[in-house]
Amino acid sequence: MAEKKASKEKLFNIRDVSISESTIQMLEKARRDGVETAFDRAANMKACPIGADSACCKHCFMGPCRLNAKDPYGKVGVCGATIDTIMARNFARNVVSGCAAHTDHGMGMLDLFREVVNGHIKEYEIKDVQKLEQVAQSVGIETEGKTTDAIAKELYAELERTYTQIEGEIPFASRVPAKTLETWRKFNFVPRGAMREIMEMMHRTHIGVDQDHENIAQQFTRVALADGWGGSLVATEISDILYGTPRPVAVETDMGVLKEDYVNIIVHGHEPNMFESMLVSVNEPALVQAAKDAGAKGINLAGMCCSGAEMMSRHGVPHAGNFMSTEAVICTGAVDAMIVDIQCIKQGLVKVGQCYNTPIITTNTRCHMDGAVHIQFNDHTPSECTDECVIKAISRFKNRKLPIEIPRQKCVGIHGFSHEYINYMLGGTFRASYTPLNDNIINGKIRGVAGVVGCTNPRVKQDWVHVELVKELIKNDVLVVQTGCSQVSLANAGLLTPEAAHLAGAGLAEVCETVGMPPVLGLGSCVDNSRILIACAEMVKMGGLGDSIADLPVAGAAPEYMSEKAISIGHYFVASGVYTVFGVTFPIVKDTKFHKLLFNDFEEKYGLGKWGFHEDPYEMARMMIAHIDKKRKALGIDKGKERVMMDFADRQAL
Amino acid sequence: MAEKKASKEKLFNIRDVSISESTIQMLEKARRDGVETAFDRAANMKACPIGADSACCKHCFMGPCRLNAKDPYGKVGVCGATIDTIMARNFARNVVSGCAAHTDHGMGMLDLFREVVNGHIKEYEIKDVQKLEQVAQSVGIETEGKTTDAIAKELYAELERTYTQIEGEIPFASRVPAKTLETWRKFNFVPRGAMREIMEMMHRTHIGVDQDHENIAQQFTRVALADGWGGSLVATEISDILYGTPRPVAVETDMGVLKEDYVNIIVHGHEPNMFESMLVSVNEPALVQAAKDAGAKGINLAGMCCSGAEMMSRHGVPHAGNFMSTEAVICTGAVDAMIVDIQCIKQGLVKVGQCYNTPIITTNTRCHMDGAVHIQFNDHTPSECTDECVIKAISRFKNRKLPIEIPRQKCVGIHGFSHEYINYMLGGTFRASYTPLNDNIINGKIRGVAGVVGCTNPRVKQDWVHVELVKELIKNDVLVVQTGCSQVSLANAGLLTPEAAHLAGAGLAEVCETVGMPPVLGLGSCVDNSRILIACAEMVKMGGLGDSIADLPVAGAAPEYMSEKAISIGHYFVASGVYTVFGVTFPIVKDTKFHKLLFNDFEEKYGLGKWGFHEDPYEMARMMIAHIDKKRKALGIDKGKERVMMDFADRQAL
Repeated sequence: MAEKKASKEKLFNIRDVSISESTIQMLEKARRDGVETAFDRAANMKACPIGADSACCKHCFMGPCRLNAKDPYGKVGVCGATIDTIMARNFARNVVSGCAAHTDHGMGMLDLFREVVNGHIKEYEIKDVQKLEQVAQSVGIETEGKTTDAIAKELYAELERTYTQIEGEIPFASRVPAKTLETWRKFNFVPRGAMREIMEMMHRTHIGVDQDHENIAQQFTRVALADGWGGSLVATEISDILYGTPRPVAVETDMGVLKEDYVNIIVHGHEPNMFESMLVSVNEPALVQAAKDAGAKGINLAGMCCSGAEMMSRHGVPHAGNFMSTEAVICTGAVDAMIVDIQCIKQGLVKVGQCYNTPIITTNTRCHMDGAVHIQFNDHTPSECTDECVIKAISRFKNRKLPIEIPRQKCVGIHGFSHEYINYMLGGTFRASYTPLNDNIINGKIRGVAGVVGCTNPRVKQDWVHVELVKELIKNDVLVVQTGCSQVSLANAGLLTPEAAHLAGAGLAEVCETVGMPPVLGLGSCVDNSRILIACAEMVKMGGLGDSIADLPVAGAAPEYMSEKAISIGHYFVASGVYTVFGVTFPIVKDTKFHKLLFNDFEEKYGLGKWGFHEDPYEMARMMIAHIDKKRKALGIDKGKERVMMDFADRQAL
Repeated sequence: MAEKKASKEKLFNIRDVSISESTIQMLEKARRDGVETAFDRAANMKACPIGADSACCKHCFMGPCRLNAKDPYGKVGVCGATIDTIMARNFARNVVSGCAAHTDHGMGMLDLFREVVNGHIKEYEIKDVQKLEQVAQSVGIETEGKTTDAIAKELYAELERTYTQIEGEIPFASRVPAKTLETWRKFNFVPRGAMREIMEMMHRTHIGVDQDHENIAQQFTRVALADGWGGSLVATEISDILYGTPRPVAVETDMGVLKEDYVNIIVHGHEPNMFESMLVSVNEPALVQAAKDAGAKGINLAGMCCSGAEMMSRHGVPHAGNFMSTEAVICTGAVDAMIVDIQCIKQGLVKVGQCYNTPIITTNTRCHMDGAVHIQFNDHTPSECTDECVIKAISRFKNRKLPIEIPRQKCVGIHGFSHEYINYMLGGTFRASYTPLNDNIINGKIRGVAGVVGCTNPRVKQDWVHVELVKELIKNDVLVVQTGCSQVSLANAGLLTPEAAHLAGAGLAEVCETVGMPPVLGLGSCVDNSRILIACAEMVKMGGLGDSIADLPVAGAAPEYMSEKAISIGHYFVASGVYTVFGVTFPIVKDTKFHKLLFNDFEEKYGLGKWGFHEDPYEMARMMIAHIDKKRKALGIDKGKERVMMDFADRQAL
């Protein structure tokens, strides 16, 4: 084993860092094998306390300046920047990077769509014509009597504006509830084009430009909304059009999906294009034969992280684990190649791969890794790359030397809910509608809806916060919708099955049993949080739950987040009207004006959502439920469903 | 005096921090008055040593991670990111912010141009039709027989592509020397649209995306070139078209331009639009009368920082000082209003303004400041804002209470050189050309050309590094071109006059005396560094000095830089082929692969320029001259001009 790391460093109790049994088993193996993972590095890396409070600024070379979070107004930067300016600028760059990740992904989808529509690419095609028409109609394109081709061309031109437009409102502003949009217009929150908003924000965070935290927030709100209702939504919609809108499908998750006697290929990343091609390549008879010739029973393809969640939802591809399991899975020795594209690909994978002779293959111009093999993926000739990756995996299978140890954990769950399917599921084909959902919320069987999403993070016990939070929510009759790594946490915990309804409160359980749905609905990858936005917009449209997203009895959470994408997502939910609670850590000093702006004023002053923070899942659930109840009360639908809480007098009586 | 700061903090010797006598006098006054400036804050703020080495990463919430610059490969971040990945990502975000600042400024100019061209704005007009035609021709627009209006409309559409284009090459790629462009194409450095490059770079710096420092550098090179040959060049060219191309003009600089018995208005920032309107407002008879009615002799307008440099160049508006003098000037008590727009506006100005009852007025949507007065400037009704600012200044003049102390320093220099004027100056009207410049370089009278540009920074002695470096360069027959705060440093030191030729070496002095030009040519603001790029391109075009910018005997320096814009500028010069030396500090750990890439491989591997660093002006000059000599040698024009250097044997002989 090359590149082992002598572990003279701080050891931790492996059971303290994860509840994923498969990951725990592999972390134990990694320790025996002398292999380092992000869990080790986190245990040995003290997070910079000043940076963690966002009390430092590196935006010019008179610094870097460090302020004191304990006395936030006691000191300013060399330029005179206050703690509010510094935190707002740092937060703004987080939002920009997160938005840029999603919008660049969306732009990549549009690049492909353009080439397909123009006939320059034949390997992909429009698979979901109905979705194409729906999306076109949603931005005001007349579809009646037009060819698919003509509609697609018009839609491309319209959606390109999401990026390139320098004035006006992004096209999907048309899907925002009228009252929410009105609020945005009032406070100048409506994005023009995503790229212009990103450019302007990066300008405004430069030394000596925007130095008013509220004005900075105005711009990063536009950036975040250009993510949620712009780039992310474009990415989701174009993916559905090209690859089909997901419908529920039973899928196996967890490391037990690996098969010892098969060539195991894992795809990990965020874009569907390469993964779709990989699905073709692993079914290529010649390649299957080559695998058999090498002594394997066949080729076994599994996903990880977000493109894994997307392919699981859309095609039922098994899923091997979330962000904090990507190094661990390699320790099985059974991964014959890990093919990655973009986002959340730990550089540490390269070393772990070297230890187990597993090739880590990068495929995207935007993501190379020092020490990885790079095989460029090209939308015009997709199988060239993915075939070569399969060949590399077969070759590694042939040369497997190390003992293989595959954890047995495997769980079947139902995935692939989309806004469209929720509509159909609740209303049936001939009366597809959100009315039944709204009705069940109004009658109190469902207390509200919570989105629980986001990453896993070695700073907290992997999956535990997700699982405990979701259990607490459904127990209290809150229907949970999920995406990304969080969805995989809950899938591995067995909550994405209709049978999990027994963990739900009586009301929610009744609805789940009637419809035959799980109390936890998996919607896909992290760009697919846009599906939650659209579901919220539909709930408003159906009526009975207020006029804006902010009126809905809903809340959101990213309890184990770690990425800047999560910050952008969190803020577009807040700015859309959703109370959004984050865990782990929050990069803002309390008792500051900027903190008050995000955690209070966005709701009180602007009438939108607001941020919340707590590390404890039960407290998080309490905060979200309290918010949902507050909204129910404001809607006048709180009567049927009083939560019986014991007050001090009750306790004394006992 | 409100908001004074009790100075229990570290005092410094004022003469150690600046050579600007006016600034020194005002810092002494500030100390007596108990007023804090950035010099005090710098003395009392230890720059974070890890951040200064760029050895920390805040790009996700598993961190912030801190590596050890002393043992750069001893540790990696929680995700596994190496020192090279971390430094490259940090550097990339610096470049993005700098590029975004210039390109957003350029986009603002285009917004105005579009509205002027469309007839929606009547307050501005096309002033330089010849420049309009030249710029249009440079991007392949046929101008023959077309109306100004038609050309302007075509040019707008073409230049908008600099921002919005999602494929292809930016329009001004047409002005890049063929061989340089060929190199860019080979290494995939040619920008598509500036906004797409910015978005992609912010994506690639997200956790788990690009983790190969060379691949990251490929993208930030595109970003930087989208600044220099994109946004900055657009800003310069449109400004020239709307406000006139600068021609040499004698202008007074330094704080002595303030007048005790006048209403003094200072405009500080980076965009010309508001400043142009201010020039109209201060000459408005009704407002002049109002000033007189208030007891003033009239209204005195002066600029500071970069829009100051631009207005000085274009209209001969006096200039009161550079970046590190903006707080000091308020301490005169004579500033009746400081009107700011964007970039390099210290938040500390607000407190200093409060101490002297000087209103600090923000005017731009992108730059508000907590505690400042905001009067929104609108391109459609420009005088509304600037008239109101003048009224505020008059009102403050009427209520002046404190004793006023205006330093006497004042210097007249020649400013307003443009690429077009250099052409004319050297060749005359009927044979305008760079040939005489090239000829004088070839014959060795001029050894080479150096661009000395950039900010001032309280971490080094204000103006001193600029002045000593430039003196050293001209003494060695290197013609110096300047922009921004550096230009003001040298102007205040008296080097922007033809008489300064006596400080030049014999060859350069002879050329200066023949043409009647200073040995130091001031080209304007920091976006006007684009004028230097164009001058380099013209030198290549004229022939005799190689085929690419990298062949020219030229070098660049930003010896007292402090901003991310400077990093973007530095990198677009490097990527264009210029050896570029920075002072103060450099955010990269030595003995790393990323350091080698920037300081060596860009030249050796790509055949472009490279970065250099030194804090000492004489050493900087030596490095630049050695590079110029290396290029002269490669061109075979080194024979006539051997520099006589004493070696050890010579010394012994003495």
